[in-house]
Amino acid sequence: MYQTVKGTYDVLPDQYEKRKRLKDLFKDVIECYGYRLMETPVFEYAGVFQKENDTSDMVTKEMYTFSPNEKDVLTLRPEGTAGVIRSVVQNKLYGNNELPLKLGYIGEMFRHERPQKGRQRQFTQCGIENIGDKSPIIDAEIIALAYNFIDMAGLENVKVLINTLGDNESRVAYTKALKEYFTPLKDQLCFDCQNRLEKNPLRILDCKVDHELDIIKNAPKMSDYLTDSAKAYFEKVKAYLDACGIPYIVDDKLVRGLDYYTDTVFELVSTSENAGAQSTVLAGGRYDNLVKEMGGPELSGIGFACGLERLTMMVEEENEMTNLDLPCDFYIIDMSKGSDYAFKVSEVLRRNLFNVDLNVYDRSMKAQFKSADRRNAKNIIIIGEDEVNNSSLTIKNSETKEQVTIKFEELDAYLESLGE
Amino acid sequence: MYQTVKGTYDVLPDQYEKRKRLKDLFKDVIECYGYRLMETPVFEYAGVFQKENDTSDMVTKEMYTFSPNEKDVLTLRPEGTAGVIRSVVQNKLYGNNELPLKLGYIGEMFRHERPQKGRQRQFTQCGIENIGDKSPIIDAEIIALAYNFIDMAGLENVKVLINTLGDNESRVAYTKALKEYFTPLKDQLCFDCQNRLEKNPLRILDCKVDHELDIIKNAPKMSDYLTDSAKAYFEKVKAYLDACGIPYIVDDKLVRGLDYYTDTVFELVSTSENAGAQSTVLAGGRYDNLVKEMGGPELSGIGFACGLERLTMMVEEENEMTNLDLPCDFYIIDMSKGSDYAFKVSEVLRRNLFNVDLNVYDRSMKAQFKSADRRNAKNIIIIGEDEVNNSSLTIKNSETKEQVTIKFEELDAYLESLGE
Repeated sequence: MYQTVKGTYDVLPDQYEKRKRLKDLFKDVIECYGYRLMETPVFEYAGVFQKENDTSDMVTKEMYTFSPNEKDVLTLRPEGTAGVIRSVVQNKLYGNNELPLKLGYIGEMFRHERPQKGRQRQFTQCGIENIGDKSPIIDAEIIALAYNFIDMAGLENVKVLINTLGDNESRVAYTKALKEYFTPLKDQLCFDCQNRLEKNPLRILDCKVDHELDIIKNAPKMSDYLTDSAKAYFEKVKAYLDACGIPYIVDDKLVRGLDYYTDTVFELVSTSENAGAQSTVLAGGRYDNLVKEMGGPELSGIGFACGLERLTMMVEEENEMTNLDLPCDFYIIDMSKGSDYAFKVSEVLRRNLFNVDLNVYDRSMKAQFKSADRRNAKNIIIIGEDEVNNSSLTIKNSETKEQVTIKFEELDAYLESLGE
Repeated sequence: MYQTVKGTYDVLPDQYEKRKRLKDLFKDVIECYGYRLMETPVFEYAGVFQKENDTSDMVTKEMYTFSPNEKDVLTLRPEGTAGVIRSVVQNKLYGNNELPLKLGYIGEMFRHERPQKGRQRQFTQCGIENIGDKSPIIDAEIIALAYNFIDMAGLENVKVLINTLGDNESRVAYTKALKEYFTPLKDQLCFDCQNRLEKNPLRILDCKVDHELDIIKNAPKMSDYLTDSAKAYFEKVKAYLDACGIPYIVDDKLVRGLDYYTDTVFELVSTSENAGAQSTVLAGGRYDNLVKEMGGPELSGIGFACGLERLTMMVEEENEMTNLDLPCDFYIIDMSKGSDYAFKVSEVLRRNLFNVDLNVYDRSMKAQFKSADRRNAKNIIIIGEDEVNNSSLTIKNSETKEQVTIKFEELDAYLESLGE
């Protein structure tokens, strides 16, 4: 018997409905901010995701990469941003549209990592990208959007953590300081961090292995290396958040797992007891260089991504989602022994977009009534031999217990009267 | 500069909206028939899709198969049915639910074939599966559902083609007859068909290379090998379709490209001029043996799949889809030179789920009015230094030209009054 591959899962109908509600909410909220959804392909050329000198775990260890022929190296997308930027550049979207571009996505992502609670190898992310301008109001707007989405989803006890990684100049100075600080201490770092020291020492601060070491706790702080303009930018972002009452905490340990971030980075974390160790629910940041690195013009961008599985799990833990079953507007009990009349009736109802359950088995009336009951049918139609011979039908409202008998020809008019 | 991989494509916002309308319609229509959507993973163990002796092009030539480690052989799903059946068996869905199971899906599929008009390497299929019982009324119901979906999508000139491949007994007799007929003529067949002759001679009738040959036209007909019960079953399916006025044509050349079909098979084809050579819009059939072959109990099923790209293309050719742009409920013109008041106002509007465009550039009032106009803003709010100092705002209705000035504290109440 075949099973799902480890780290992948089936989304059965009740769960599908829960996820769909959050996806629909996401679409509604981002549209309020002028974002529109798009889709990029599930696989791309590996280079789209793999930047030069990228040291993130995602890129170095976790990508599903394969070659369907001798020439191409393809990767199942591990995240949404790179594909959207590739599309913006390839389709020159910055040329034909008013800037900033406001794009969103909801899609499956793939990372070959050890499965753990709320973290799978196939998972769904919803995210947005704002591309074309750099301004504190945009950063604040996108953090407000993220906060409102999570708030409307029903999560309580959510904190916004923010930090700044500085502009390019701040980052060069800080990277140099970290190199100088860590080089004599190299032997105390893990193997991965020894590599990071050469390529991107900032990532040492984020290391899951080394983060408890004193040498990391005592490392130089980003805040001491920010240029004046980077400092002013971050102050302005905070002022906008204050203005509209978004609660946030500045966390100078917040580096984020992807190499391309600059200036503002942020995370929304759940502090509820159930969330456990994995409490980040949404994360993002600004990227000054990514569009250019991918072959486009020098356009800054900012975005975030939110894992739908973890969000669904967290929302479920705090709020029961009810009424997931399909409504049943009409249940047709067919006692006519194989006539096609009940089928004809069902088709008229369904073409008017009513949800209909038609018994297709040779079962007792009692068994059929039981099914109608289990489905919470709003109306029950009983068709027996008399109804077939008269071309009539009797419709009983389950709540009011009222019943009407009408001719088949009157059915369309009857259904129309229901809508009034 | 990176490009999409050949045979894959970006779905930009307008196109996303068109596809979403068809996906939403699909969900509405199948729910009327009691089907609920689910999702299976994008990749599965290769064996889920690759049945023993399967000779279809899809399985032998077109699958994206890869190994992320030494042990596993995985395949990007080339179609939706096998994953749903695997899930039904793995999760024993037949045990806990009333039969027949009614499941649907909308998802990306992958086939490594030569890209052509309306046929890509990544494509989207929506489909349904009805599992658990075999009865002509179910076959007719699913064909009616398919027809109504395509009809409501707005396609005209659609024909339903149906055929029967007979039950297992009919198929054994017919396969034997075809083998006897083709074996002496083997040399005239293409290389693939010479292989099919051993494994599944039925597929020779469906060959894209050989289909014009006289020896194929003169081959034995399925209809001469049907058992009485298979014949009666098919007659009953047709009678149900007649009862509810679904127009259909019996096409005894209809074999379908997948090996697992038995009894009823059907296709919906567009006969409009624009559709070109590739006119099949939806196809499906019954499968008596698939659930058992995949390790489940002996349950018959029937399903269909519909290619969303081709359907969208066909619908677009026949009907313009309009109003794809996001509505803009409020456009905020900000002349306050960097105050955070306009941002505060935008947040109140957005938290009430109004679509808002807030100018984030330092631009002239004229330029901002032009943007508001381009976005067809229903209301325009102008915020200047006076408004910031008074904590007030003026809202102008673009259609009626009426305008009101209110205090910031009155905004929530004003928005509530709009809903009345």
